[in-house]
Amino acid sequence: MHPSTVSRALSPDMKHLVADAVAQRIHAAANALGYRLNLAAAALRTGRSGLIGVLVPDIADPGFPPILSGIADQLDAAGYATIVVDVGAHRSQQQFVDRLIARGVDGLVLATVSLRDSIVKHCLDAGIPAVLVNRLDGSARLASVASDDAEGMRLAVNHLAELGHVSVGHVAGPSNISTGARRRAGFEASAARAGLSARATAVEIAASYTREAGREAALRLLARRQRPSAIVAANDLLALGVYDALAARGLGCPIDVSVVGHNDMPYVDMLSPPLTTVRIAQRDMGEAAAKLLLERIATPAAKREHIVLAPELIVRGSTAAPPA
Amino acid sequence: MHPSTVSRALSPDMKHLVADAVAQRIHAAANALGYRLNLAAAALRTGRSGLIGVLVPDIADPGFPPILSGIADQLDAAGYATIVVDVGAHRSQQQFVDRLIARGVDGLVLATVSLRDSIVKHCLDAGIPAVLVNRLDGSARLASVASDDAEGMRLAVNHLAELGHVSVGHVAGPSNISTGARRRAGFEASAARAGLSARATAVEIAASYTREAGREAALRLLARRQRPSAIVAANDLLALGVYDALAARGLGCPIDVSVVGHNDMPYVDMLSPPLTTVRIAQRDMGEAAAKLLLERIATPAAKREHIVLAPELIVRGSTAAPPA
Repeated sequence: MHPSTVSRALSPDMKHLVADAVAQRIHAAANALGYRLNLAAAALRTGRSGLIGVLVPDIADPGFPPILSGIADQLDAAGYATIVVDVGAHRSQQQFVDRLIARGVDGLVLATVSLRDSIVKHCLDAGIPAVLVNRLDGSARLASVASDDAEGMRLAVNHLAELGHVSVGHVAGPSNISTGARRRAGFEASAARAGLSARATAVEIAASYTREAGREAALRLLARRQRPSAIVAANDLLALGVYDALAARGLGCPIDVSVVGHNDMPYVDMLSPPLTTVRIAQRDMGEAAAKLLLERIATPAAKREHIVLAPELIVRGSTAAPPA
Repeated sequence: MHPSTVSRALSPDMKHLVADAVAQRIHAAANALGYRLNLAAAALRTGRSGLIGVLVPDIADPGFPPILSGIADQLDAAGYATIVVDVGAHRSQQQFVDRLIARGVDGLVLATVSLRDSIVKHCLDAGIPAVLVNRLDGSARLASVASDDAEGMRLAVNHLAELGHVSVGHVAGPSNISTGARRRAGFEASAARAGLSARATAVEIAASYTREAGREAALRLLARRQRPSAIVAANDLLALGVYDALAARGLGCPIDVSVVGHNDMPYVDMLSPPLTTVRIAQRDMGEAAAKLLLERIATPAAKREHIVLAPELIVRGSTAAPPA
């Protein structure tokens, strides 16, 4: 057998070039000889690992899996395996990135960046192909895909204004994260355009994107002298916390207070009441991010691109006219 | 400076042995020289990557993140980074395992195995430390951590029998997966012990652990001549499908049919109605699996251990006495 046939048969990336029966014979012989493919050695030679790292801020957030699924399907089709790293609250993003780069990953998708995040410069300095998804940084120096946060809030606020609400509160996400800052700015601009007075549009910032932090922020909104008749949350986990706060105060949704979420994460249609929310195109977002990354791996000098996807409002049972 | 100081300062695993100021000067100098740590080369030399791979069957299943979180916290503390791979329905588990082994991961946690899964032998042959979590294979040749599936079903069935149900259906998980097979066997044994007749204990098997497959199986149960007054689902995603099926047939829960889930995945307390379910100790399961794996990395000949965790029943609004 020609050495190049053997080489192809034993390479996960080129195996398809060899007839199945031939490949099987070669594998059997290699196994008998105790041969194991050492990709660490192969990566040193080819500089290519076939692995793409995806950094997520919180793997327990049900909003991320649809994004991950969109990413993995596209990368799969291009022959890359997707590995997911949960950066979590207390872990060092840069340490994970360094480990992944050092392991030879071919590119990174970052769903974790804050507005002023040193990780962007770190990736640029390291020369690793990288794209942002869902969350943006302020420098716009990496290609990105995100939902139109301002448009999402416009849909939410206009829906409530049309129902007759005049006092609307906002549970904002952390202000150092683009979705927190942009959705809050979108809320305030839309409320002003809808004719709501600044006095009647209270904002409380949640410490993190969690149900518990949403509950805390909503309790502060509900304790205000002018209690809002509707609350727009910056994402669905925060909206779950708003539900908790309403229950803790003996208030009904939507009879006393209407609630709007953001993201349309799985299963919010089954809540009591089903959640009215801004649906973002998570799968499309993941697919677009993977495509941008593949382009950048193929053509490192590809021009920067910032894709913005349109959200839509899904009206369910958590919104109604304000109490008379 | 002594070469070993430089070596330590530049190693992610030994950096803590060098004073911060010294390490910073060394890093600055190394960066200026264009130095990058090449862990692919380092792994060839040390045979250690600091990475642990976790294979999950479906990253969109909200039941897994608490397990992952337990695993990652333990591994973090031991200096390992956790990378998660979503094997998905259509992907080849063995291909992922081969890629991870070839990249030099130090161990694997498998949450994906079926009852007769060739991946177990594959890992044993490859000599890679590996443990099973949540799902078991039939051979019991790898250390494992799982919930007591039979005991969980006993709790569910006894709860329904005490409420007065005499006709109870089961939406089983796939029978080639341990949780599907064991929970079904547990359901049948418990129903018999509770004095329910075999004729009154119908079983329908869901094609996969998804809401949609749960809906299909529940519709088949509801179409039977003797319609059950209660349904026990093999996990919470299937229970969501049971809710869908009841809604599609115009039946109320729990007024017409009671429903019990399994796992107590996040947010089922907020469903309409809140789901009665068997809580499994997901975080403990993840932590125990990580500890077993770390022991096996340290001592490859460590004796096999099979840890079984006790579940508990969480009674919420989806169960009540049968209609009169």
